[in-house]
Amino acid sequence: MRSPAQNAQLALLLEVSGTPKPGNVDRHREYDDLRFEHFVAGAVGSTPGLELAQQGAAVGRAFERGVAGMAEQTAGNTQFGALLLLVPLVRAASSDPGAALTPQAARDVVRATTVEDACDFYRAFEHVDVGVDDPPSDLEALDVRWGARVEPTLRERELTLFDVMELSAGVDGVAREWTQEFSRSFGAADWIEAGDGPVSERAADAFLRLLAEEPDTFVGKRRDRATATEVVERAQDALDGAIDPEELATEFVRRGINPGTTADITAAALFIALERGLSV
Amino acid sequence: MRSPAQNAQLALLLEVSGTPKPGNVDRHREYDDLRFEHFVAGAVGSTPGLELAQQGAAVGRAFERGVAGMAEQTAGNTQFGALLLLVPLVRAASSDPGAALTPQAARDVVRATTVEDACDFYRAFEHVDVGVDDPPSDLEALDVRWGARVEPTLRERELTLFDVMELSAGVDGVAREWTQEFSRSFGAADWIEAGDGPVSERAADAFLRLLAEEPDTFVGKRRDRATATEVVERAQDALDGAIDPEELATEFVRRGINPGTTADITAAALFIALERGLSV
Repeated sequence: MRSPAQNAQLALLLEVSGTPKPGNVDRHREYDDLRFEHFVAGAVGSTPGLELAQQGAAVGRAFERGVAGMAEQTAGNTQFGALLLLVPLVRAASSDPGAALTPQAARDVVRATTVEDACDFYRAFEHVDVGVDDPPSDLEALDVRWGARVEPTLRERELTLFDVMELSAGVDGVAREWTQEFSRSFGAADWIEAGDGPVSERAADAFLRLLAEEPDTFVGKRRDRATATEVVERAQDALDGAIDPEELATEFVRRGINPGTTADITAAALFIALERGLSV
Repeated sequence: MRSPAQNAQLALLLEVSGTPKPGNVDRHREYDDLRFEHFVAGAVGSTPGLELAQQGAAVGRAFERGVAGMAEQTAGNTQFGALLLLVPLVRAASSDPGAALTPQAARDVVRATTVEDACDFYRAFEHVDVGVDDPPSDLEALDVRWGARVEPTLRERELTLFDVMELSAGVDGVAREWTQEFSRSFGAADWIEAGDGPVSERAADAFLRLLAEEPDTFVGKRRDRATATEVVERAQDALDGAIDPEELATEFVRRGINPGTTADITAAALFIALERGLSV
């Protein structure tokens, strides 16, 4: 059977295969400079990092290696946030191979992260441009765009990777998963497992439900809060049948509204479902 | 950078991502019981076999492991023929990591196969249903549908895997690549490298050129010679602009004409191009 690292890779690939996923690259829609094949190459490239996590390597180190491999394609950042969820989940799934993957196991992994993990996390930003805002003034010294130069501050303040995630949880939906026992990822895994039909269609359905649930923080950062709120409302309209999800997908891609955080959580949900026995 | 095993996996994924590829599963077309996601899971599952080949394991053993992993999805055979090309190519690419991958290196690998490799090859048929015809009466004892039960015959006649491929080269386009220094795979790699634009589009173009070049032996076996000949002519019409490749793709899928051997060679060509430095 597939290993956790293989399931994580498959989750990344199934996530981008699902369609329609309004605003995201999927099997039927792409941006000129961010294409389906870049996500495929990103998933393949990230494997060594996922395998490190499976072998019990530190979360920060495995993440940094995963991002370095992911970035070996011409579009830059494709799955940074997804890897930030998948790496601790792979660690959790590998720590007790016979046991079911639980929110508690995931919580234990992220709470055990260290200052070294935080340093490696910042190092990962040197491989790719990740869309982030200016940090609030009290967090300027921790601006991720400084990459490895933040290391002295992390050591001085004794900040673990979990601490760093807690500081961002208010503005970043991926960080919030770290601090809330991956609750949306596990919830969406339940939806995917309860569905039937092709797995990539179920993933697209889960994506739309997540999108209607709360504002996508990547859209909030790259665009603005009003757009993020509009996305929630339009996704709900699509769920209610008031608008066609295919049309919404085409419109969002045209407008460059790309709900990346929701895609990251969908990938995590797929991984959890696969680990629990979902067959493709 | 990506390892040969990773490039082989990426080749499998880019092959199925290319569209339109008349009659094959691609990013926009699938069969109810043979879907895009089955090919994705097949590519992920085959990785341990590809890694064995990279580590220098025997070709038959690596192939059998690759097929076993590939088959861990619900559609059965997705990339049997592609793996039969990729495994020796990965071996060749790994044997001299600094050197360019050449037809000579591939030839050396397949000519060095043994009776053990032939036994493992037959064992691989136990994992999946592969579409084959009744063999000619003089080859009845070597019918692949007998799987591992053919082993005594292989040992008695001292048939290597290369010998087995030579016996099928007249009726099987994948076996013919083994005996002809992978000439079509290397030729199509040249086309892909010479092109520009998205790699998956170049792969789809290469597929159409291969399809117009000679009858697809999988179509010949699953359907008949007349259909295989028709496919060549229609593919040429599509290349000449007389018909729309998208329409041809839709028509072939509707009629269940699935040129699998041509897809296998396209995957091999993508691998060769990636090994030679093609970037995605």
